Amino acid sequence: MMMNTIGKILTLTTFGESHGPAMGGVLDGVPAGVDIDLDELQRFVDRRRTGQTTGSSTRAEQDRVEVLSGIWQGKTLGTPIGFIIRNTDARSADYDEIARCYRPNHADYTWQAKYGIRDPRGGGRASARETVARVVAGGIAIQALARLEITVEASFSPVDPAELERVAKDGDTLGGIISCVVKGVPAGLGEPVFGKLHAQLAAAMMSIPSVHGFEYGDGFGMTDKRGSEVMDRFVKHDDGSIGTVTNHSGGIQGGISNGEDITMRLAFKPVPTLMRPVPAIDGEGNPVTLQPRGRHDVWVLPRALPIVEAMAALVILDNYLIKKTNEL
Amino acid sequence: MMMNTIGKILTLTTFGESHGPAMGGVLDGVPAGVDIDLDELQRFVDRRRTGQTTGSSTRAEQDRVEVLSGIWQGKTLGTPIGFIIRNTDARSADYDEIARCYRPNHADYTWQAKYGIRDPRGGGRASARETVARVVAGGIAIQALARLEITVEASFSPVDPAELERVAKDGDTLGGIISCVVKGVPAGLGEPVFGKLHAQLAAAMMSIPSVHGFEYGDGFGMTDKRGSEVMDRFVKHDDGSIGTVTNHSGGIQGGISNGEDITMRLAFKPVPTLMRPVPAIDGEGNPVTLQPRGRHDVWVLPRALPIVEAMAALVILDNYLIKKTNEL
Amino acid sequence: MMMNTIGKILTLTTFGESHGPAMGGVLDGVPAGVDIDLDELQRFVDRRRTGQTTGSSTRAEQDRVEVLSGIWQGKTLGTPIGFIIRNTDARSADYDEIARCYRPNHADYTWQAKYGIRDPRGGGRASARETVARVVAGGIAIQALARLEITVEASFSPVDPAELERVAKDGDTLGGIISCVVKGVPAGLGEPVFGKLHAQLAAAMMSIPSVHGFEYGDGFGMTDKRGSEVMDRFVKHDDGSIGTVTNHSGGIQGGISNGEDITMRLAFKPVPTLMRPVPAIDGEGNPVTLQPRGRHDVWVLPRALPIVEAMAALVILDNYLIKKTNEL
Amino acid sequence: MMMNTIGKILTLTTFGESHGPAMGGVLDGVPAGVDIDLDELQRFVDRRRTGQTTGSSTRAEQDRVEVLSGIWQGKTLGTPIGFIIRNTDARSADYDEIARCYRPNHADYTWQAKYGIRDPRGGGRASARETVARVVAGGIAIQALARLEITVEASFSPVDPAELERVAKDGDTLGGIISCVVKGVPAGLGEPVFGKLHAQLAAAMMSIPSVHGFEYGDGFGMTDKRGSEVMDRFVKHDDGSIGTVTNHSGGIQGGISNGEDITMRLAFKPVPTLMRPVPAIDGEGNPVTLQPRGRHDVWVLPRALPIVEAMAALVILDNYLIKKTNEL
Repeated sequence: MMMNTIGKILTLTTFGESHGPAMGGVLDGVPAGVDIDLDELQRFVDRRRTGQTTGSSTRAEQDRVEVLSGIWQGKTLGTPIGFIIRNTDARSADYDEIARCYRPNHADYTWQAKYGIRDPRGGGRASARETVARVVAGGIAIQALARLEITVEASFSPVDPAELERVAKDGDTLGGIISCVVKGVPAGLGEPVFGKLHAQLAAAMMSIPSVHGFEYGDGFGMTDKRGSEVMDRFVKHDDGSIGTVTNHSGGIQGGISNGEDITMRLAFKPVPTLMRPVPAIDGEGNPVTLQPRGRHDVWVLPRALPIVEAMAALVILDNYLIKKTNEL
Repeated sequence: MMMNTIGKILTLTTFGESHGPAMGGVLDGVPAGVDIDLDELQRFVDRRRTGQTTGSSTRAEQDRVEVLSGIWQGKTLGTPIGFIIRNTDARSADYDEIARCYRPNHADYTWQAKYGIRDPRGGGRASARETVARVVAGGIAIQALARLEITVEASFSPVDPAELERVAKDGDTLGGIISCVVKGVPAGLGEPVFGKLHAQLAAAMMSIPSVHGFEYGDGFGMTDKRGSEVMDRFVKHDDGSIGTVTNHSGGIQGGISNGEDITMRLAFKPVPTLMRPVPAIDGEGNPVTLQPRGRHDVWVLPRALPIVEAMAALVILDNYLIKKTNEL
Repeated sequence: MMMNTIGKILTLTTFGESHGPAMGGVLDGVPAGVDIDLDELQRFVDRRRTGQTTGSSTRAEQDRVEVLSGIWQGKTLGTPIGFIIRNTDARSADYDEIARCYRPNHADYTWQAKYGIRDPRGGGRASARETVARVVAGGIAIQALARLEITVEASFSPVDPAELERVAKDGDTLGGIISCVVKGVPAGLGEPVFGKLHAQLAAAMMSIPSVHGFEYGDGFGMTDKRGSEVMDRFVKHDDGSIGTVTNHSGGIQGGISNGEDITMRLAFKPVPTLMRPVPAIDGEGNPVTLQPRGRHDVWVLPRALPIVEAMAALVILDNYLIKKTNEL
Repeated sequence: MMMNTIGKILTLTTFGESHGPAMGGVLDGVPAGVDIDLDELQRFVDRRRTGQTTGSSTRAEQDRVEVLSGIWQGKTLGTPIGFIIRNTDARSADYDEIARCYRPNHADYTWQAKYGIRDPRGGGRASARETVARVVAGGIAIQALARLEITVEASFSPVDPAELERVAKDGDTLGGIISCVVKGVPAGLGEPVFGKLHAQLAAAMMSIPSVHGFEYGDGFGMTDKRGSEVMDRFVKHDDGSIGTVTNHSGGIQGGISNGEDITMRLAFKPVPTLMRPVPAIDGEGNPVTLQPRGRHDVWVLPRALPIVEAMAALVILDNYLIKKTNEL
């Protein structure tokens, strides 16, 4: 496997299997001299933890971030920031049966087809646990962006609590939509051909487990509009700056930020692991019925917010750095 | 600017401004010994040309592909395939006024913010004319995939011809949705973390001008379903192969192809250039009204089909090659 | 084949076979707004042409550079600079015999082993003619560096003209050493681990055909010295700047430039093509004797100077741009 | 900083400061299913440890490799192999004075010029301790190559023990030459333009601290020879395979391996840290004399052998994987 790295100048490489000794990552390219508050970072990572909201898994990882390099005396050194998060509450025995089967809507079958070998414990590297490393890295990026007065905020489409309980009782699961807005991005970020800012954001967001769709600005809603209906008129503000009256474009035109809020939406499919008997196949393709085991989320949207914010922050900070190379 | 290159092992680098001497590209990483039919390639590129369907621009480029390297005696050499397409029908005088203004929903303003300089003629490099180079490269990838019995086909959501005429008469424009299906992809393509097959496809598709949204499989339609409703049960076919009964997953699970059809949909915003007076601003931010000039499309979906197919083919072939490195 | 691209932020991609329609390249990442004098560029490229010095090939290419994008009205646009150089004086018939044989010290055999196919005409892409594209790109980089008061100059170890004639008469060839010095590089360029400035320079220089060795500063000469003998003492100059009294380190310490002249030396092997009967093998491994054909250099050092300068300039400018991303 | 990553398909990313909590790395792209013997790996890493040979530092790190991912039940999973090596014997107090000074022939000054901040303890990330991560990764690559019957072996130019003692007594240091040979490489590895196999090897080797020169085959020794003197005649062996009678070319022709032994030599400068008073400057450029502190090597060549072998192995295995993508 390759492509465990994302980014151009700011690069994040992650590693780790769900039930291995640790998850981890290396964030390279963070400029030197940036103040990093490790307590604040830990609190950001804690937002992703399980057991905090209705419908989330009862696997109770501490998710304690251990920074191994790149930050000294509260400041970045300009060197790669290596970090790990130990896996401590893994119950691998839950996965003995799964090791010999392919569950529907999981990566068991495709992973086997690709590598001919897999670590079935907790989904191995296919587990969404991999995203903890993204959240650590994104949390650092968010602190750097804050110094530039750029903020990232994600929110999820609400679900009726009673609906959630009913779904859980059925052993079923839900998906939903997460919106994300980035404020304070200066005009001029993004590479106008293959590296369009929204193309980079799409790649980053679609790499989050369970995301099946991405749109920015008015997105799919623009497809049945006329050009005149989605036109963002320019306006000169009182302070002399230039903006647009509306923001159908989602803050990006021609792949480059225009200074307005960057807005996007992500479609999450329902959690694939049901807590009821599920039809699967064994290694020879024979049908089997799997009994529910392990600890799983009914609904991941609240836990996914920091993941979405992390990916947005990584892309924006990377493009902020790229922008510096546009002039001699 | 950087990031005029896309791909990992199969890489496409493009260059060219709309009214410069030529558009062009370099496709590197095509395996050696692949038969390429240059006439077939030219016919594929011709599908993108203007003036062929109602509602398309009357700019009449010949778009004659000139291959400069990498193909000899009808076969690829394994060396980079360099090619150019001359720009012959450019009417740069149409753009004198635009050079001093920022049009709404165009890249004029953002480009200026990024580079401090731009070639305004025909939109310069921000023009969708850049995509001709993608179609050439994609056409080569399609021929390589055909030898592997992998096919790519895009189609657009239909528009009532009378509606199109009415929109054109109003000087207005339309968008729409393009669907794309890739058939014959073996199980095992795609990199399961940041390089998920659908994340790569999303990045490639979102880099096409005017695309505002991407989804694969059931996409946004999955967000209000339960997990049990979108489960793709595995089945063992009579020939012993394994497949799924339904394909909500769009042929990709855990970021890796599962052997089913890969399905995706793209949201195109309406063409941004209207053929009627448009409110813009000049370089100082003062409002101006632009009179329509140049030759533009009312609706780009038919012309966009080969672009979509090209991008899909480039991503799939790249991942086919990457797959070869999974075992020693 | 991949890796026809070099550089990180400033990237050069080249293409072209020796007897194909054209050589060419794409230089991406040049900042916007840099003045480029195309006549000066042509003169730089002309320094690489044949037929200008004793001992060089009589193939008389015009090597006229055709810039297709990225430069407009004498300035860079920040977009990729695509360019081609037509091949006009190719005599492919000279290569009929070679197509069926493997010459010693050439790439015929290894190329065949790698790709299973090759364009034998003039060595195809293995020809040193590929370097013309590097010289074009490097010439642009040199003009950008000049604006930063950074200069690059290569020189070769002298050869006695009578020796050169004697060697030519014997149908034999020579190699030699090229030295290169880069002046005016500010302290702080280079990436201290895998991207050490001298490691990048080594990779760039070793990619020039016939180069068999690279050293910087005192290089191999340091291996039999003691640490105390090669110590570059720091000194504070009258203007307050810091420098070193000696420069055994060749202007680079810990992989990062220190502000002193960057010095390096390259070992060129003798030209592999002799103008006398040569023992080779055919495709089945049977010995054959090849009669000299084609037009070849006895000695390439004078022609190689602009190639060496080009590669140095590309690396230095790339690192100058990378340096900009070290702070927020 | 970026470029803490090396390789194309097989990529190694390293992190860690000399006196931080740990050194570490991520080796991505190792094919799935390769047997890895972790004890053998530890023994390979132990070869780099200090205190084993005359003249090496007395810093006594255990250098215990902790593999965190990517290897399960003795086999690679195809996922990234994350690993760390704790720093346990760091005496940071030794570096208080150095924190305010720039030592000659060290990276103190250049690092400060680049980042404006540095971790002075033990040289921070500029320390050769970074190479422990390379040795871990290289040790894994060596085990993979062994399965392909490819071996790597480095050796150093001998030094008279009495000379070494005398140098140590003087508080002085030595350098020297390390030779490396790779046996069993099949013909066809290497990318013939910018990615010539020897260019990749040069970049890898020149990135090892203290290396000032690289040559392959007869290297600098070819520069005063005639072409006829360094010609490697082809020969058909009894088993039908093709080889060369001599190997002036060092196993690489046109940047591609030809099946012969790959031979190269590296020039190591003398260790920069002397154990006697040394002239330095403080932050304002005023001369100061530094008294020797810390624990340092007089001579690093024996400890450098596994580093050289590691870098060679990483490059060769990467190119072995790249080669797989040459055909459809």
